[in-house]
Amino acid sequence: MTLGRLNHVGVATPSIERSIAMYRDLLGATVIGAPFDLPAQGVRVCFIDTPNTQVELIEPYDDASPIAGYLKKNPAGGQHHVCFEVADIDAAVADLQAKGATVLGEPRIGAHGTPIVFVHPKDFGGVLVELMETPTGEGH
Amino acid sequence: MTLGRLNHVGVATPSIERSIAMYRDLLGATVIGAPFDLPAQGVRVCFIDTPNTQVELIEPYDDASPIAGYLKKNPAGGQHHVCFEVADIDAAVADLQAKGATVLGEPRIGAHGTPIVFVHPKDFGGVLVELMETPTGEGH
Repeated sequence: MTLGRLNHVGVATPSIERSIAMYRDLLGATVIGAPFDLPAQGVRVCFIDTPNTQVELIEPYDDASPIAGYLKKNPAGGQHHVCFEVADIDAAVADLQAKGATVLGEPRIGAHGTPIVFVHPKDFGGVLVELMETPTGEGH
Repeated sequence: MTLGRLNHVGVATPSIERSIAMYRDLLGATVIGAPFDLPAQGVRVCFIDTPNTQVELIEPYDDASPIAGYLKKNPAGGQHHVCFEVADIDAAVADLQAKGATVLGEPRIGAHGTPIVFVHPKDFGGVLVELMETPTGEGH
């Protein structure tokens, strides 16, 4: 596997609307997607573009959301994960597992329509890493 | 101010050497800078390139390091900050202060040789934001 693009930085927030206002009004973000629900993953998300990558705002979809626990510990929100692109998710998973890393679950379809998986933070110095098969037709 | 490139994601680590090995051996990072000291900022840093941005590994330079406290709470390391580029650091600081944000200290020269400042995480939903005047001559 070769380290691919940083697709996005995932930021947990108790309120996507308030976070959008912060990025727009304080930092001057201008390309802000419409928030949408990913009920299968228990989250509502919104992508904010920078010229070279994206910030993914993540809000719990319900109390069973995988990020509810994160927000309990960090009520204001905070950095949640980083997502790198890979050419082939199955090859990446096999490679990581062969090297002893703990891949969390099976690949599933992520926010950009291609398969994603998460790798346990213990394998990456406390950083939760998402791997995403490179989206096509996104223009970047 | 307009939201600029994500210059890097800052990752705190107790050991830059061990983190380099993780990014190289598990994720396939190939463009890895030589670690260097920034004693004025109390850190040792190393930049790892992705095709579109960088990961900045940050290790405490000494016990008085500003990231020593972070590592005490997160001994394995973890995501520490995100750094966005701005065209003019003084204008960005004035703009943020006019909008009520808490800029931490005066701009100082950062790891890429241009002025940087940090903004208090309370103003960005728990995310520590670094602003960096766009480096020139870096080829990206």
